[in-house]
Amino acid sequence: MDGSIGKQFLKDYFKRTDESFGVFFDAKIREANSISNIPAELLRRFAVTARKGKKIRGALLTLGYQMSGGTNNEAIDTASFIPELFHTAGLVHDDIMDQDNVRRGLPSLHYQYADMGKTLNISTDLMHYGESMAMDIADAVFFLSWDVLLNLPFDDNLIRKTGLIYSQYVTRCAYGQALDVTNIEIDGATEEDILKVHKYKTAEYTGVMPLLMGSALAGDIDDTRKQAIIEYGTAFGWAFQIQDDILGIYADEQELGKPLGSDIEEGKNTLLTLHLSKHGTSEQKAFLKEVLGKENISAENVEKMREVLKDAGSFKYVYDLGLMYVENAKQAIPAVTSDKTYQDILESMAVFMMERAT
Amino acid sequence: MDGSIGKQFLKDYFKRTDESFGVFFDAKIREANSISNIPAELLRRFAVTARKGKKIRGALLTLGYQMSGGTNNEAIDTASFIPELFHTAGLVHDDIMDQDNVRRGLPSLHYQYADMGKTLNISTDLMHYGESMAMDIADAVFFLSWDVLLNLPFDDNLIRKTGLIYSQYVTRCAYGQALDVTNIEIDGATEEDILKVHKYKTAEYTGVMPLLMGSALAGDIDDTRKQAIIEYGTAFGWAFQIQDDILGIYADEQELGKPLGSDIEEGKNTLLTLHLSKHGTSEQKAFLKEVLGKENISAENVEKMREVLKDAGSFKYVYDLGLMYVENAKQAIPAVTSDKTYQDILESMAVFMMERAT
Repeated sequence: MDGSIGKQFLKDYFKRTDESFGVFFDAKIREANSISNIPAELLRRFAVTARKGKKIRGALLTLGYQMSGGTNNEAIDTASFIPELFHTAGLVHDDIMDQDNVRRGLPSLHYQYADMGKTLNISTDLMHYGESMAMDIADAVFFLSWDVLLNLPFDDNLIRKTGLIYSQYVTRCAYGQALDVTNIEIDGATEEDILKVHKYKTAEYTGVMPLLMGSALAGDIDDTRKQAIIEYGTAFGWAFQIQDDILGIYADEQELGKPLGSDIEEGKNTLLTLHLSKHGTSEQKAFLKEVLGKENISAENVEKMREVLKDAGSFKYVYDLGLMYVENAKQAIPAVTSDKTYQDILESMAVFMMERAT
Repeated sequence: MDGSIGKQFLKDYFKRTDESFGVFFDAKIREANSISNIPAELLRRFAVTARKGKKIRGALLTLGYQMSGGTNNEAIDTASFIPELFHTAGLVHDDIMDQDNVRRGLPSLHYQYADMGKTLNISTDLMHYGESMAMDIADAVFFLSWDVLLNLPFDDNLIRKTGLIYSQYVTRCAYGQALDVTNIEIDGATEEDILKVHKYKTAEYTGVMPLLMGSALAGDIDDTRKQAIIEYGTAFGWAFQIQDDILGIYADEQELGKPLGSDIEEGKNTLLTLHLSKHGTSEQKAFLKEVLGKENISAENVEKMREVLKDAGSFKYVYDLGLMYVENAKQAIPAVTSDKTYQDILESMAVFMMERAT
């Protein structure tokens, strides 16, 4: 099976919820505006970025609900904003930490506000102003995501159980982020270290959390199924992150919506560069050392890195690892659901994680 | 009535909950440690700062519960960690935004981690590493505060209502913070502008939110009382913030646990400096202009600022405004509770806000 069913599921979800996501933001922007146009404008800009996401997590939440027998489709579409709000707010903080200046084809929010600071005649460090404003609106959105949850038309008990899943996984995501921020810089990180960061920082809240939250909202609390969802979702999330690392070098920059090679510029230890640093020729290793952690990697060096990673077998090694996780995800599916339709969506979604071009 | 009953109430609360607050953190630190000692150490350091707070908000939450007839004292003490976690996490973000380097007698968390970065051989900008790590653990704690709420032994419906209050007020606090970060820098801020920032950034989540959350956990949803709590709490919070501004210049630095004059260094518009800029002699205004927004204000200039603010009548003007808010808070008390004991605590707490030396 290829990723086309999964791709279509994501596309349908995006199309179905895009307008209501906008309506949601409009209402919240009006509320913010009753305090001041300053937070309202911040939220308006946040919304533009949030609406441009791939929305894998939102789609998975609706899938978790549907495959667990839930039938309130309108409510679950609203619920699906929760992981999307968390995800985009997290990216805003992440872009500050990683000093990334482009996100989803737009200047990162803190860059937008560094510019805004000029208009407002902010007299001190404009970048610091931008970072403060971006940090702050992401905080507001973290809180708003709880407001969404607590206002859903589901039983109090289901809301509580869903909230417990949410708080658990987002806390772990923040712990994983601390590990990532520190590991970027530490020499001697192993493959195990990197996969651990991927698990906590990305895989769990991407693959596991939305499916579990959706299932919980449908009233599902069966431990065996829960375990299978965790297995599927973690493997799904690992595959997602591996393809993310690959796309960071091999994507079409325009389509990707962020600069190629930014992991390399940050000197981040990824599975690709780790493999190269161990298995490359001395010339290839020297090239890695030359570009790793240096600002403004050239298009030529991105192109050369692509070749070097292919020549050294690093691309194949990491790509195959991603396919292995897709396989692991598939293995878990029968215990997640016995419904053939949902089995197919789950399988194709996992496959699509390694096929996607953005 | 003076502030001694209020002071004692705070002291009793602190003493009663200090150990269990530590036990709470220990359990969460162990959880974080199961992922890695890096987030665990971050949380351990966060806990040290959190436990040193004045804990006004935690105490108010228990008061809101008790005066609304709640009787599960152990559970409400745990619930009271929620606003304290939010408050300290908010301060961690605030210290990054305001570039404050001391908090509660310790280096701010981001300064602690800039130092830590040296030990870990972090190769890039240490201050950026410190800010990233501090930003991140505060995010984690925001999420943990929800975990506390959702695990409380109260009915699902009460948890949900309490959560709705929590999400509403902390979102508004973040909006107020955006206003503050921007207003710091904008010339021509009026008294109304500053009081608006105080309301959203501080007064509501300090005075209103904990009382409403405590009342909600006791099952209280009466609209008239709710309105009275909002009136009392907002006035209480304004008085709190005004005294905070005053203490920022007039406190004993050792007792205060942070440097005097930091608002002046940041060039922040406060009610004190605003009054001075309007009503001071040309010499006094020239002095203000000389020190406002300049780094490292000297002890001599703090001392001179104290005198200038007194001579220009700015101190008296702002102090009287604080007393007016205390008076407003008192007016609201009869509609909050008819119980004399709780009336006295509410009144004395409000009075204490303008008496406190830290």
